[in-house]
Amino acid sequence: MMYKKLQKLDLEHIWHPCTQMKDHEFLPLIPIKKAKGVWLYDFDDKAYLDCVSSWWVNLFGHCNPYISKAIKKQLAQLEHVILAGFSHEQIIMLSARLCQLAGKPFNKCFYADNGSSAVEIALKMSFHFHLNLGQKRHKFLALSNAYHGETLGALSVGDVGLYKDIYKPLLLECLSTPVPKDENFENELKTLRLILEKNGNEICAFILEPLVQCAGNMRMYKAQFIDEAIKLCKEFGIQIIFDEVATAFGRTGSFFAFEQCKLKPDFLCLSKGITGGYLPLSVVLTSDEIYNAFYAPYETQKAFLHSHSYTGNALACAAANAVLDIFEHHNIIEKNRKLSAFIKKKFEILKEFDFLGNFRQCGMIYAFDILRNPDTRAGLFVFQKALKKGLLLRPLGNTIYFMPPYVICKDEIKYVCKSLREIFKEM
Amino acid sequence: MMYKKLQKLDLEHIWHPCTQMKDHEFLPLIPIKKAKGVWLYDFDDKAYLDCVSSWWVNLFGHCNPYISKAIKKQLAQLEHVILAGFSHEQIIMLSARLCQLAGKPFNKCFYADNGSSAVEIALKMSFHFHLNLGQKRHKFLALSNAYHGETLGALSVGDVGLYKDIYKPLLLECLSTPVPKDENFENELKTLRLILEKNGNEICAFILEPLVQCAGNMRMYKAQFIDEAIKLCKEFGIQIIFDEVATAFGRTGSFFAFEQCKLKPDFLCLSKGITGGYLPLSVVLTSDEIYNAFYAPYETQKAFLHSHSYTGNALACAAANAVLDIFEHHNIIEKNRKLSAFIKKKFEILKEFDFLGNFRQCGMIYAFDILRNPDTRAGLFVFQKALKKGLLLRPLGNTIYFMPPYVICKDEIKYVCKSLREIFKEM
Repeated sequence: MMYKKLQKLDLEHIWHPCTQMKDHEFLPLIPIKKAKGVWLYDFDDKAYLDCVSSWWVNLFGHCNPYISKAIKKQLAQLEHVILAGFSHEQIIMLSARLCQLAGKPFNKCFYADNGSSAVEIALKMSFHFHLNLGQKRHKFLALSNAYHGETLGALSVGDVGLYKDIYKPLLLECLSTPVPKDENFENELKTLRLILEKNGNEICAFILEPLVQCAGNMRMYKAQFIDEAIKLCKEFGIQIIFDEVATAFGRTGSFFAFEQCKLKPDFLCLSKGITGGYLPLSVVLTSDEIYNAFYAPYETQKAFLHSHSYTGNALACAAANAVLDIFEHHNIIEKNRKLSAFIKKKFEILKEFDFLGNFRQCGMIYAFDILRNPDTRAGLFVFQKALKKGLLLRPLGNTIYFMPPYVICKDEIKYVCKSLREIFKEM
Repeated sequence: MMYKKLQKLDLEHIWHPCTQMKDHEFLPLIPIKKAKGVWLYDFDDKAYLDCVSSWWVNLFGHCNPYISKAIKKQLAQLEHVILAGFSHEQIIMLSARLCQLAGKPFNKCFYADNGSSAVEIALKMSFHFHLNLGQKRHKFLALSNAYHGETLGALSVGDVGLYKDIYKPLLLECLSTPVPKDENFENELKTLRLILEKNGNEICAFILEPLVQCAGNMRMYKAQFIDEAIKLCKEFGIQIIFDEVATAFGRTGSFFAFEQCKLKPDFLCLSKGITGGYLPLSVVLTSDEIYNAFYAPYETQKAFLHSHSYTGNALACAAANAVLDIFEHHNIIEKNRKLSAFIKKKFEILKEFDFLGNFRQCGMIYAFDILRNPDTRAGLFVFQKALKKGLLLRPLGNTIYFMPPYVICKDEIKYVCKSLREIFKEM
């Protein structure tokens, strides 16, 4: 009763993100009543295992007692204060900890509320940095198949046609260099060199999602390519932005994905997992060298005057500090290593289906593609069947991925594999 | 001790928004320990009256027991769930209530995390709406002196040079029409008509902050101009976006600023006060007519695929519902009317200073300008002196404004006026 009533009211008044709403004529729209750990419960008390960490944000389960307690404690003290001219203990501790974790040269944190805004900040900062140094560069370079968010600046450096093509007349022109197709990336480096030789002096920054292009169908590529690409860019004075909105906080096997590369970027964009899936928060980490290029007498107009009202929200920072506590106290990265090996082993069973392929894994991200009928919405079929079995999967086109909260247990992983096997047997 | 330690750590690791960080060589950076009502307390227990509602977000005081309780209750149930394909009770109730409050034609809510993102959504939606109808329009029209946020799309439709000029090479070209200087707006309407006659068929939407251009030095202008401008735009098939990020939720005297106009916009952007100053949340309200232009079979590619990970966050929606409860149960709009009359009366005392002028008020926003020495940072002088008296004011250049939480009491208002009088006596 409640279920139907809420469902109706929802479809009457909510325009859902990333959704053709007409699809809900045959797809259920599921109001969630409560959640615990990896499980979401609807108003009929049916449980769904959150295999996508609610859009890759949840790390330690829903309604995690430790994070909830930290937010409650903060609620009694200070919920929010303007961050211009003022500050608070949670954001100060969080910033010191993030700089410590990221290591040199990272030493400054600039905050915002979502990943798109973090990307916009990094783009603006890089452009402005060059200008403050007297260099007029105004182009950006990105990887093919990239995704960096949905605001117009972030969308400009992305390359997923589904999100971008329609808005072309509104977007900044951006240069694109191919992401490697496989372990051999000589051709991709050659193309990059050609682009740089032609446009190198006009480019502010090269932006990329290290190791995994998540929204780009979980395309995984080598750290070695990244290191070589960075070296090339540096020859041309080009800054590097790592969009680690989806890849950081242990998702790719190390705390930050960049730890798997030899070279570090100039800007590091973080969001999603930063609050463990609790609250919107994002941050751009950068170096003192870059900060100092903006540090000048007021009247020189070199300041970076970007702002959002809720920047550095105390409740979100409290959640983020609790998340870092959990990483510190529970040896998460090491535990995830074992868990991801277990996932790899269990998912082997799906290789029996000859219409599945490109099995791949990077840390706590596992993915494969449905090769059959690329033009049909096979992913959608899997989504629907999975829901019936109590799994929230959300395929990217015909790519099925498994990206669960880190608190998932072995039996739950086995259940996911067993269910997927049953689904594919029906295909 | 704690104070100094935190201050040092802050300046070591945090790059504050909208700040030339070098200013903190002489300006204090104040870590806040706790807050209650209109008061913020630092680590020496010095109290500051939050005269700017922490960047215009706080409505019912810091650490408001009713809002805190609502968030705590939600923490026990569901902190967050992906909003694509899923939903939850808080966002469903909030959406129904917002549509009810805004009235026809508003009937659909599309969520995001900050004001900039809401503006970007409205711009993209308007562009895409025309495209879905087979019309290729790709320009936007905005008011001179406008401010709509900091991401590149939002910045493109703004006109505050301080934030925008440097980034010009990255921005979308945007048409600008003058905001009225005073009660006579015949010339401004003439200019608007000329712009529309030349470019009308290329313009997707006209975006404006109704009644008050807040970041544009609290410029106030008449609802009658807005109605006339809307009428003109409609002749050319141009949609209207009201950026009510700062003006809604009672700030301008009515619940929404648009209630003071005869005509309604096509898109309504809300944020800031929506959670009472607790958590980042924003939403774009629009009509079924516009929603239906995107409602089509999936393969037609008419869907609006914008998304942010934390869109529709359950904790933020719980805070927003608590805020609407307070409006409903405590007759806030009526109470504010009396309070703003009291503010007006008390601030009269400042008219004794001949170097102050342009005294103006719109609901719970009161502002005036320092007319002397426009090239000096007189506002900064006031900011520093006010801090010493325990007031957090944050002048916009040489515009001093008072925009307190609605729970401020008469004695506190009297104290603000008395303190300002003392400060101006020193000038």
